[in-house]
Amino acid sequence: MAAINFAYEELAADLEAQIRRGTLRPGDRLPSVRRTSVEQRRSLSTVLEAYRRLEMLRLIEARPRSGYYVLPQVVERPPLPLVSPASPAPTSVGTAALIAQVVRAVADPDAVPLGAALPDASLLPHAALKRCMTAAMRFDAPGGVAQVPPEGVESLRREIARREWSAGHVAYHDEILVTAGASEALDVALRATTSPGDIVAVESPAFFGVLQAIETLGRRALDIPVCAEEGIDIDALEAAIAKHPVRALIVTPNFHNPVGSYMPDASRARLVALMTEHGIPVIEDDTFGELYFEGPQPRSLRAWDEAGWVIRCGSFSKTLAPGYRIGWIVPGPRFFEAVRRCKLATSLGTSAPPQLALARYLAGGGYDRHLRQLRRTLRDNVARLSAEVCSRFPEGTRISRPRGGFVLWIELPAGTDALTLGRRALAAGISICPGPIFSPSGGYRSCIRLSAGHPWSERTEGAVEKLGRMLMALMNHGLNLGG
Amino acid sequence: MAAINFAYEELAADLEAQIRRGTLRPGDRLPSVRRTSVEQRRSLSTVLEAYRRLEMLRLIEARPRSGYYVLPQVVERPPLPLVSPASPAPTSVGTAALIAQVVRAVADPDAVPLGAALPDASLLPHAALKRCMTAAMRFDAPGGVAQVPPEGVESLRREIARREWSAGHVAYHDEILVTAGASEALDVALRATTSPGDIVAVESPAFFGVLQAIETLGRRALDIPVCAEEGIDIDALEAAIAKHPVRALIVTPNFHNPVGSYMPDASRARLVALMTEHGIPVIEDDTFGELYFEGPQPRSLRAWDEAGWVIRCGSFSKTLAPGYRIGWIVPGPRFFEAVRRCKLATSLGTSAPPQLALARYLAGGGYDRHLRQLRRTLRDNVARLSAEVCSRFPEGTRISRPRGGFVLWIELPAGTDALTLGRRALAAGISICPGPIFSPSGGYRSCIRLSAGHPWSERTEGAVEKLGRMLMALMNHGLNLGG
Repeated sequence: MAAINFAYEELAADLEAQIRRGTLRPGDRLPSVRRTSVEQRRSLSTVLEAYRRLEMLRLIEARPRSGYYVLPQVVERPPLPLVSPASPAPTSVGTAALIAQVVRAVADPDAVPLGAALPDASLLPHAALKRCMTAAMRFDAPGGVAQVPPEGVESLRREIARREWSAGHVAYHDEILVTAGASEALDVALRATTSPGDIVAVESPAFFGVLQAIETLGRRALDIPVCAEEGIDIDALEAAIAKHPVRALIVTPNFHNPVGSYMPDASRARLVALMTEHGIPVIEDDTFGELYFEGPQPRSLRAWDEAGWVIRCGSFSKTLAPGYRIGWIVPGPRFFEAVRRCKLATSLGTSAPPQLALARYLAGGGYDRHLRQLRRTLRDNVARLSAEVCSRFPEGTRISRPRGGFVLWIELPAGTDALTLGRRALAAGISICPGPIFSPSGGYRSCIRLSAGHPWSERTEGAVEKLGRMLMALMNHGLNLGG
Repeated sequence: MAAINFAYEELAADLEAQIRRGTLRPGDRLPSVRRTSVEQRRSLSTVLEAYRRLEMLRLIEARPRSGYYVLPQVVERPPLPLVSPASPAPTSVGTAALIAQVVRAVADPDAVPLGAALPDASLLPHAALKRCMTAAMRFDAPGGVAQVPPEGVESLRREIARREWSAGHVAYHDEILVTAGASEALDVALRATTSPGDIVAVESPAFFGVLQAIETLGRRALDIPVCAEEGIDIDALEAAIAKHPVRALIVTPNFHNPVGSYMPDASRARLVALMTEHGIPVIEDDTFGELYFEGPQPRSLRAWDEAGWVIRCGSFSKTLAPGYRIGWIVPGPRFFEAVRRCKLATSLGTSAPPQLALARYLAGGGYDRHLRQLRRTLRDNVARLSAEVCSRFPEGTRISRPRGGFVLWIELPAGTDALTLGRRALAAGISICPGPIFSPSGGYRSCIRLSAGHPWSERTEGAVEKLGRMLMALMNHGLNLGG
C-alpha cells in the first residue's frame, strides 16, 4: 500500500502547489477525476484519494453534480519587505539584464509613470479601435484565424503605403512588411543586413531596445554621439567608418529617443550620401515621426535614398495601440527578400486580428484628427514637465528641448548616480528610466529619461517635486562623503 | 518655368506609379491639395497642376466638394507566362532562400493545399473565437491597446498553465511566456541558450522553421537522424555529443513534423537523462502534441526533467488560429530570465487582443470538445490521404504512419526529384512541400510532405491522382534519359 499512498500524495502535492502559487484560483474547477486519472496515468481511486486529501486541507470542495472547485484561502500574508536605501554603486550586470530589470520596474502599475515611453491609454482612441476590431470580427471572415502571409494583411499594407507618401517617399503596398512593432522591425533589419560579430554603428545614447537586439544577436555596437539638437554627429560617424568595418547603422532622424533631437534636411542628405558611398545599410527608426510639435511631417531618409540603402521602420505603438504590437518595415528592393526571410524565421507572420482592426481604423479617416489632438496634448505635457523639472531640480541640471515625441533627457549635476535615484524613486512610488540603459558602453550614469506620455496631474507635479528633493539628498550625501 | 514643370511632373509621376502598381485603387481618395502641398513641400499650384494632369490621363477624377478619387482603369492585361517544365536539377540556393520560395508558393490560394501544414479554417472554431474577441473588446478595458508585460496577458497564462498539467508537468502561470507562435518560442529559446557559431543538434528531417532560425541567427545545425516510428535516434545523438561541442538540442517528441514519429516514454526518459548528464539545453517543440489520434495526451519531456534542462514550446496555431500567431514557452527557472530578455529584445511583447480572446475561449470550456472533433477529423483525413497515395503513387514509394498531427512524409522512388515535382505540381494547381526544405544539409531530394489539414474532397482525390501521374512521367523521363 505504500506505493499507492505515494502516488496520491504526489498528485495532491502538485495540485496544492498550483493552488498556493495562485495558478489555480478560488472558484476554478479542477479537471474531473476521470480526466486526471487518464492524463496523470493514475488509477481512479488514487485521484479520488488525492482530491479527498485536498478537501481535508480545505483547499477544494466538491459541488454535487458539478465537480471539484478551489476554495478561497485564508492566507496570513507576511509583511512586505522594507525597501533598503540600496548601495550607491550600480550593480554590475550586462546591459540586457539591466534593461530587463528596468522594464520590469517601470511596469509597476501603482507608480507615477515617468519611466516607460508609452502614451497613456486615455490619450488613445481605444473606443474607436474596439469598434473597428468588432467590425473586423463581423465582416472580415474568418476573423483573422486563418494564416496570413509573412508580409501581413494587405488592406493594412495599403493604408501604411498611403501614409508613407506623407513621409516624403513612395512605398508601394507590396514593398511593406507588417511587424510586431518597431522592435521586431529593427530586429529583422539587423538580422537581414549583418552577421554575428559584425559592427553596428548606433547612436549614443540609443533606444535600449536596439542595444538589446544587438547584444542578444551577437553583434557589436559602436557608439556615435548624438547632439541634443541636430541628431547623430556625422563627422564622428565618418571618422568611425574610416576606422572600423561598420556593417550597418541604426539612426533616429526624428525626435530621437531619449534625446529628442531632430536632424535638419541637409544632414539627412549628407548622411544618406555618406552611407551610399560606403555601401552601408541605414536602418531608420521612425517610431516617433508622426508626433512632431510643428508641421509639416518630417521626411524619411528614403526621400534622399536613390540607391536603396535605407531600411525604414515605423510603428503604431506610440500613436494608437502599444498593446497591439504592430509596426512595419520598408526594406527597399535591395533588402526585401532577406528581411522577409528573417521575418519568416522569427515569427512566420504578424497576428492578424490587430492588423484587420487597424486597417479599418486607418481607412475610416479619423487617424489624422486623432494625431492632431495627440500632438497638442503631448507638446503641452512636455512643456509642463520641462518647466517643472527646471524649477524643482538642482542647479547644474541640463534638459533636452525635443521638437516632437514625449520624452525628456535630463543630465543631472555631475556625480549624481541615476541608478540609485531610480531605485529610490521606485521605492517612493515613482518610475523613471536611468541613463545607463541607453548606453552601449556603460555611460550616462548621471542621466535620466522622463516620459510625458500621461495626462498632467497634481500627482505628476508632486512626483517631480519629490524627485527634486531626492536629488538634493543624494548630492548632499555625496558632498558629505567627499568632505 | 522649367523647374515648376519638373516639380508637378514628378508629383504626378509618383501618384501615377502608386495607381498603376495598385497601391492606390479605384475609389480611393487622394490626399487633399492642401495636404499634399504641405507634405510634399510643393506649392498649391504645383499640386493642382499635377492633379489636373492625372485627370487628363483619366487616372483620377474630381468630385465636387469631396476631393480627388482614383478612377477604374481599363487595363490590357498581357497573357500569363507559360510555365516551363523547368530543369530537373534543383536550383542552388541556401535553405532559407529555398524555404522562403516554398512558403510563398504553398500560400497560393487557388492551389489544392497539400503543402502548408495548416488546419483549414473550416475545421477551426472561428465563430466562437470571434465571439470571444468581441466580448474582450466589450469587457476587457481598454481593449488591448495598453502595453502588456513581455510575459503576456495573465489570464491566458493561467489557462495555459492548467493545460500544461494535462501534458504531465506542473508549470505555474508565472513561469510561462506567451510568444508569437511556436516559431518565436523556438527563436528566443535558441537565442537564450546559444551564441553565434554554436552547434545546435537538430532532427533530420527537421521542421524548416527551426532551420531558418538557426541559419539567420548564425548558429550551425548538426543532423541527428529521426526514425519514422520512434523519433530521434538517441544512440546517434550520444555519438554526436561525444564528438562535437553541442550547445543545444531541438527535438519534437510528439508527431514530428514532417515524419510523424512519436517517442516512447522510455526514450524520453533516456533522452532527458543524457542531456542532463551533459548539461545541454533541450528545446522541446510540442506544436502538435494535442493532436494525438489515440489518448491519453502524450507527456512533455519536462515530466522527466528534474534538473531543469528542458525548455518547452507550444502553440495554438495547429488547433485554434494560425492567424493569431499565439504560442508559449516554459523555460524553467534555469533559463527564464534569459528567455524573457530575448523576448523583450525581439518584440517587446505579444499582441494583446488575440491573447484576450484566447483566454476567454479557453476559460469558456469548449476547447476540449473542439479538440476531440478536430482529432477525429484529422485522423480520418490522414488515413484517407495515406490510402490514396498508396493506390496512386508508383511502386517503391514509402509512406509515414503518423500517430498524430496531420502531415504525411513520403519517400518517392529513388532518383525522383522532389523540387521538380513541386514546381510541376504548382503549375498544375497543387501545392506540396518538397523534402529539401526539411534538410539542414541538402538531403531528402526524393521526399515530399503532404498535409491532410483540409476537409477531404474529390478535388483532393483528383490532386493525388494527378501527382501520381506526374511522378510516373518524371520517372519515365528519367528512364528514357538513362536508356
